[in-house]
Amino acid sequence: FQDSFAQNESDERALIKVKNGISISKDSLFLLNLRFRMQNRFGFTTASGEDLEIDQVDFRVRRLRLRLDGYVLNPRIQYYIQLGFSKSDLDLESGGYAQPIRDAIVYYYFNPNFYVGFGQSKLPGNRERVVSSGNLQFADRSIANGFFTLDRDFGFFGYYTYQTNGQSQFQLKGSISTGEGRNPSVGDKGLSYTGRIEYLPFGKFKNNGDYSEGDLEFEELPKLSVGMTYNWNENSHRTRGQLGSLLYEGRDMNVFIADAMFKYSGWGVMAEFFKRGSNDPITMNDKGDIKVVFIGIGTNLQL
Amino acid sequence: FQDSFAQNESDERALIKVKNGISISKDSLFLLNLRFRMQNRFGFTTASGEDLEIDQVDFRVRRLRLRLDGYVLNPRIQYYIQLGFSKSDLDLESGGYAQPIRDAIVYYYFNPNFYVGFGQSKLPGNRERVVSSGNLQFADRSIANGFFTLDRDFGFFGYYTYQTNGQSQFQLKGSISTGEGRNPSVGDKGLSYTGRIEYLPFGKFKNNGDYSEGDLEFEELPKLSVGMTYNWNENSHRTRGQLGSLLYEGRDMNVFIADAMFKYSGWGVMAEFFKRGSNDPITMNDKGDIKVVFIGIGTNLQL
Amino acid sequence: FQDSFAQNESDERALIKVKNGISISKDSLFLLNLRFRMQNRFGFTTASGEDLEIDQVDFRVRRLRLRLDGYVLNPRIQYYIQLGFSKSDLDLESGGYAQPIRDAIVYYYFNPNFYVGFGQSKLPGNRERVVSSGNLQFADRSIANGFFTLDRDFGFFGYYTYQTNGQSQFQLKGSISTGEGRNPSVGDKGLSYTGRIEYLPFGKFKNNGDYSEGDLEFEELPKLSVGMTYNWNENSHRTRGQLGSLLYEGRDMNVFIADAMFKYSGWGVMAEFFKRGSNDPITMNDKGDIKVVFIGIGTNLQL
Repeated sequence: FQDSFAQNESDERALIKVKNGISISKDSLFLLNLRFRMQNRFGFTTASGEDLEIDQVDFRVRRLRLRLDGYVLNPRIQYYIQLGFSKSDLDLESGGYAQPIRDAIVYYYFNPNFYVGFGQSKLPGNRERVVSSGNLQFADRSIANGFFTLDRDFGFFGYYTYQTNGQSQFQLKGSISTGEGRNPSVGDKGLSYTGRIEYLPFGKFKNNGDYSEGDLEFEELPKLSVGMTYNWNENSHRTRGQLGSLLYEGRDMNVFIADAMFKYSGWGVMAEFFKRGSNDPITMNDKGDIKVVFIGIGTNLQL
Repeated sequence: FQDSFAQNESDERALIKVKNGISISKDSLFLLNLRFRMQNRFGFTTASGEDLEIDQVDFRVRRLRLRLDGYVLNPRIQYYIQLGFSKSDLDLESGGYAQPIRDAIVYYYFNPNFYVGFGQSKLPGNRERVVSSGNLQFADRSIANGFFTLDRDFGFFGYYTYQTNGQSQFQLKGSISTGEGRNPSVGDKGLSYTGRIEYLPFGKFKNNGDYSEGDLEFEELPKLSVGMTYNWNENSHRTRGQLGSLLYEGRDMNVFIADAMFKYSGWGVMAEFFKRGSNDPITMNDKGDIKVVFIGIGTNLQL
Repeated sequence: FQDSFAQNESDERALIKVKNGISISKDSLFLLNLRFRMQNRFGFTTASGEDLEIDQVDFRVRRLRLRLDGYVLNPRIQYYIQLGFSKSDLDLESGGYAQPIRDAIVYYYFNPNFYVGFGQSKLPGNRERVVSSGNLQFADRSIANGFFTLDRDFGFFGYYTYQTNGQSQFQLKGSISTGEGRNPSVGDKGLSYTGRIEYLPFGKFKNNGDYSEGDLEFEELPKLSVGMTYNWNENSHRTRGQLGSLLYEGRDMNVFIADAMFKYSGWGVMAEFFKRGSNDPITMNDKGDIKVVFIGIGTNLQL
């Protein structure tokens, strides 16, 4: 249901050329792309390896997204809005109320290698999270991603690409955000600080392939991207930082992520390492109930 | 507010030719239709036939729908998405959380007489339910429909039309679905099986008139469609199968529906008969509270 | 992020000419404009004037709106739909469930000076409320507006402009509505009646400037609009009429508003006066808890 020859979507910038969906422009004053994505699911688990009786059926609309992006007044001023309408998109299972907004951000491009954003979008965290769900190899992300990812947050974002004289390049990404995740209420003063550096020793991947899974582009020469993220989240109120149920008290947390993507002639390998820490992960209420920050270590390997 | 000369919408397939709304296509690679429907209501009931003082006022946005349909890659691969935003569309009154998705389904057409679908849509149940709300004769469906209809569900759907050598035709419709209604959570193993057969002894109605109310097309010759549906819903958790409040325990239920539509020179008659059964309709919790499957018989006649 | 040279949006009619957004028409049978508005916010308050440590951070998607308007069949039959998706748009903070519909109304134009509407829209209340959020001088409306505004309601609306032989004109606006605010449930019999008169002694403002803040149009001659609104809300169930938390019992309320807008050569001044009354503002439940209608007086001055 997805045109796999289309340009890879990235959740880190607006898309200016699209091959599917409605696209309307007027000179270089205005551009609006309108697209949607639907993902229906049928899955089941058997009771055990020997007993093949069906135990549980997962049968539902998994993702239904409406995406608007483009620019206004000037191609330097880009925007990106994504709404989600399925039950899991609305974050009802954890959140308690419907939250249709996934992304809502404006970017300003100083030049193609340097742009800044203001709004709600994915933090520059682990690679698998930033890969758009349309470019995943499997229908869902890994379990480690679920526990440790930085997810989306509201704040200021900056992206800078430094091209060396040779073919290698560095990408620097940073964010100052609320640290309370999607659609926070009017917040407290503890913000979240995220920095990420990526090193691509053999140059750019074809068609942003460092942020898609599998090597659909068939790289003729080996391509590698190595990334490291550090996030410091002051006075966060959720068990997994930007995600999870509410803690009884705010806590400072930190997350370290290292990841790599390697692609060569149709093969793609992605590896990720995660570590979340907190100086005092246990919170307690008056009755003695306990809620704990999800600290620990995780890995994710995909080929 | 509805263009009554437009092609009748059916909730059983995507619409490829529309006369209203935005329609965008590119060769035969891609088609997107975007439409919406708004229905505002003003109604009141008097205290009694003698006392004409107004007792209750029903004054609200009854339906507000956004509909996207078309095809991708190939006219054989069609999709149909419908979102609803009004308070009653969101199913808040019974459900407890907002559920904007009404339909989200992909169809594959083997040929014009045989197509299959995967996703969320209306089950091939009683005729009145499948008639799109834009083609109803009255603003609301009947009370019997409310009690017995199969409504929407998530699953696999199949539609086949068998044309005899004469003018008569048979339509076979079937579905295997979750049995838990719109936007279910990750479910249990009890599925729902639906089969329906329709017989049109005098051939096709003009402009799909077997699924619209009233005879706006003015049939010159009498047209008749007779249908029967049987639904078996294993381990369902709601009092009306796909609808209603939660039972204390899952129950098996079955629904039998027979219906007919007759149209001739401006006249339309529709009749429906319903029967829901369950081997053990009463569920009880630890405290002795009781929740009951809505079993029984109903009819609906409209001219 | 807003094109300030575009035609001023009014929340009191559909927009037929738009300079931004998608606009699709077919002869004069059909017109659909599709636009959206995004407003992201970063704000903070310091602990006190001397202690500049940051106390609270307001950092979020403040408004995210999708707007559809145009006409069907005939340019006299216009519609206007506005959906809101941000957390504050959904009215979750006060309401308890998501309410994406802001406006959903159909208008019939007898002539350019006389039109009627049926649906949900802003009541003809105080001037600042009716100014679209894209035409505000500050990002938020005043505190007095928050306490006394009539906000949105569902019902019948009428608008009439009387042009005198001189340059002055009168505008008459009226509404009969549910009195229970956005997306009411099936209601009781107490309706709400609103009447408003505006007097423009020096004629029309450029580009509907009587309903935008600031004088971006640079009026060469002084322009003035003086308005008065009276609203009578029978058996209302919320503390601020169409807004606020639920009262324990219905109460009759009345609101009187007087306002004025003056613009001249780049300067704009707006003043508003409010008074809400109720014969019996205190409601009590069985346990003796109290909920009070927000009665009192307020003013708002802006230059």
